Amino acid sequence: MKPAISDSLEENSLYYFANARSLAFFGASNRGETMGSIIFMSLMESGYRGDIYPVHPKEQSIRGLPAYPSADNLPLVPDLAVLVLPTKVVPEVLEACGRKGIRQVIIVSGGFKEIGGEGIALEEDLKRIIHKYGIRVVGPNCLGIVNTRHRINTTPMLLRSEPGSVGLVSQSGSFVAQMFEYLSHLGLAFSTAFSVGNEMDVDLVDCMEYLEVCPDTKVIALYIEGIKRGREFLQAAQRISCKKPVVAFYVGGSETGKKAAFSHTGAMSGPDELYTGMFRQCGILRAYSVTELFDYCWALARLPEPGGRGVVIQTHSGGPGASAADVCGRSGLELPALTEGTRKALAEHLPHTASMGNPVDSTFTQDPRSFFFDIPRIILEDENLDFLLIYLFLPEDAIKQRLIVAGFSEEDTEKMIADIIRSGSDAFIKVLEKTKKPVIGFTYLSIREAFIKKMIQTGMPVFQDPARAVAAIGAVVDYYEFKNRMLREA
Amino acid sequence: MKPAISDSLEENSLYYFANARSLAFFGASNRGETMGSIIFMSLMESGYRGDIYPVHPKEQSIRGLPAYPSADNLPLVPDLAVLVLPTKVVPEVLEACGRKGIRQVIIVSGGFKEIGGEGIALEEDLKRIIHKYGIRVVGPNCLGIVNTRHRINTTPMLLRSEPGSVGLVSQSGSFVAQMFEYLSHLGLAFSTAFSVGNEMDVDLVDCMEYLEVCPDTKVIALYIEGIKRGREFLQAAQRISCKKPVVAFYVGGSETGKKAAFSHTGAMSGPDELYTGMFRQCGILRAYSVTELFDYCWALARLPEPGGRGVVIQTHSGGPGASAADVCGRSGLELPALTEGTRKALAEHLPHTASMGNPVDSTFTQDPRSFFFDIPRIILEDENLDFLLIYLFLPEDAIKQRLIVAGFSEEDTEKMIADIIRSGSDAFIKVLEKTKKPVIGFTYLSIREAFIKKMIQTGMPVFQDPARAVAAIGAVVDYYEFKNRMLREA
Repeated sequence: MKPAISDSLEENSLYYFANARSLAFFGASNRGETMGSIIFMSLMESGYRGDIYPVHPKEQSIRGLPAYPSADNLPLVPDLAVLVLPTKVVPEVLEACGRKGIRQVIIVSGGFKEIGGEGIALEEDLKRIIHKYGIRVVGPNCLGIVNTRHRINTTPMLLRSEPGSVGLVSQSGSFVAQMFEYLSHLGLAFSTAFSVGNEMDVDLVDCMEYLEVCPDTKVIALYIEGIKRGREFLQAAQRISCKKPVVAFYVGGSETGKKAAFSHTGAMSGPDELYTGMFRQCGILRAYSVTELFDYCWALARLPEPGGRGVVIQTHSGGPGASAADVCGRSGLELPALTEGTRKALAEHLPHTASMGNPVDSTFTQDPRSFFFDIPRIILEDENLDFLLIYLFLPEDAIKQRLIVAGFSEEDTEKMIADIIRSGSDAFIKVLEKTKKPVIGFTYLSIREAFIKKMIQTGMPVFQDPARAVAAIGAVVDYYEFKNRMLREA
Repeated sequence: MKPAISDSLEENSLYYFANARSLAFFGASNRGETMGSIIFMSLMESGYRGDIYPVHPKEQSIRGLPAYPSADNLPLVPDLAVLVLPTKVVPEVLEACGRKGIRQVIIVSGGFKEIGGEGIALEEDLKRIIHKYGIRVVGPNCLGIVNTRHRINTTPMLLRSEPGSVGLVSQSGSFVAQMFEYLSHLGLAFSTAFSVGNEMDVDLVDCMEYLEVCPDTKVIALYIEGIKRGREFLQAAQRISCKKPVVAFYVGGSETGKKAAFSHTGAMSGPDELYTGMFRQCGILRAYSVTELFDYCWALARLPEPGGRGVVIQTHSGGPGASAADVCGRSGLELPALTEGTRKALAEHLPHTASMGNPVDSTFTQDPRSFFFDIPRIILEDENLDFLLIYLFLPEDAIKQRLIVAGFSEEDTEKMIADIIRSGSDAFIKVLEKTKKPVIGFTYLSIREAFIKKMIQTGMPVFQDPARAVAAIGAVVDYYEFKNRMLREA
């Protein structure tokens, strides 16, 4: 019995999971390093905005909060219950939650269908209970939900991220919990992320439909080991893709991936070609790794709709420029020539060794102002340009060395380096603010380098290899081509 | 007139480039931030072990070293001259070097064939001069040579790396100069790296033949925009590949890459398929990005020869394990089942929720000692295992949080975290020391995380995505299959 689709977030059946105003927590204690205690601390330290009611059979309080002996004794009916308990006590606690009137439950505990045998029978018991009371369950065998706005976090990892725009539905808890830091280096964060576990009740499709109507979510990422409701998935994905991009990393397609997925969540996978076809049909962009999954999300969350597939590359180094050009060519992107007007305007900012082809290569001798302001400003006005792909190499170390060569003392350089990086990034940010065209960076430096980090924080995707940048650009082009075709045909 | 191949490093025609005991430097000054001064400082600060003779028409000394007004006035004939001069004075200085008897010259200056027109004529002038005196030239339009053992470094970037094992021949100076830090994060460094520029004289093939006999070089990386001596390249590569692996990143194959390469160094590229066929024929591993180029070098430089293509994956998280398994399947690697004996031995170290398939998934609840010592030690003895691919996730942040949950104070945790990381890495290092089988890590953490960094410094490749790890494993498998086939047929 699935509720009808609604455009309203509040009417979505998962609303009180991701926006719980209060929750009962089963499985935290005051001693020991149990999973329950770790998750409980994680929830508290992540800044959850609602009320937490720990439930414990013996303790009066749990880590500073008043505790209740059972669900029956709770002073109110919380929006959500979180169960991190030994497998065998889960059914009775779930039953007690039902009696109390709790209608949203996250079961983190494992030991059910995924281990086979008696686990399958135990999961059937859970199903009977939720049908009896009309409870919705996320899990079991999952890490539940992360919502960065309301600071809900039922994973063991501390949530520090500001509210973000990437929605995630994952058949692996690791790809929720272990990605906080990864995403933060990209200047990204989850809006809401679901670890769906065994999908006993709430499944991939339900969560996608929540993210569909979630206004914080700009792009939806999926980690898929197998799909249960194929037809519904297809319909939902096709509808959602016309509103916001969906990127999927599917690992059940190869024989080895299929086996691994099965022993992980007991999901049944289908052949790779079937999924490839299905994804294409409903406009889902397919990623082949976690890196690709979040690279595509990065570009799709940050970049405006492009006018076409024409990429202009700006560089001051031949090799990186040629590498970017090569991979553009392989990926079906175009490298348009600049117009006569652009070339004329550029001429006064480029040395005689420069190339005004595409890549625009200013060669080594460039001052930061011209590279980060004049040149991109001029190029971005070119009517043939749909994307600007720019090589970024402004390492603190090298700047320092140049300053020392120029005669400055070690002490003087610190502040000067900060100034140089700031003036470069300020100039470039001005250019970015004035253009409506997508701008993407690439570098071989660490994304923790000061200049790169600054640009990423500003919202510009900067990829550590042009191959990654170009794949992400390709995803953006593919997505808007799909969307516009669907909208025309509708 | 190319000299015959010799197995002796000293007899190699490029010996006095990469092992220059003394060099004359043209183009440094005491003022201003010219390229010459930057490179001069870079050379001095990189710890060059030989004698440097700056040449300057007016100054008595350059940055603390006695200067000489011209090549003719040098007190001895240095092994090498480095020219970082305005284009138009290069011919006369080269002529002076020839008169003096200098036989190795690096011409960093650009403005020759690569800019067309008069540049072509100027390069012809240079050719006449070197033939007259029998000079060998690297360049022009290059960044010359880096040798980490003798601390030769004619790039503008400071060289801090210890002596390394990756030889590089690059048709882009950037991929020499801008890769020092990139490689150091992988725990790698160049042995000798050549930026060949316009290849007026010394070319790709010459440099490959130097690296062939260089005992410091374990693996050879090539960045290619176009090949001039196809037949010689093929012969050399085939011979070298039987001794040490060669990995090539070729960007001239796509139409766009070809154009970019041409405007960069004036190199003529051939169609992609031609190069793919040629590379395959001579055992060169083809990379499609700089990331792949150095990933393959990383694995090839660090890992022993494998017994076959059987990969066993060890994880404590289902998603990362399934992702690794999936990509192994796609890449033609095998995921063998563990023997009965191994499974029996493993059983006592794994919880009941664990999977003893492949991936071996210990699930969340594991202690570091069992994950980093007992389990890998047992798995590595399995006769079906050729590679161990292990998921690494030991983030300082998460450990800290657990310690606080366990009741320790903020202050106590610092030392404890260091202890936990050290005991994990020490245990794992013991396992690595005892096995002759290749072990590769994968993670989604930054490679700057303490535990990951430690393992990388120990010499273990740790890739930031299983897709990268598996591609590198594939390169290792392909290389040894080629090598062994060639040796059998010889």
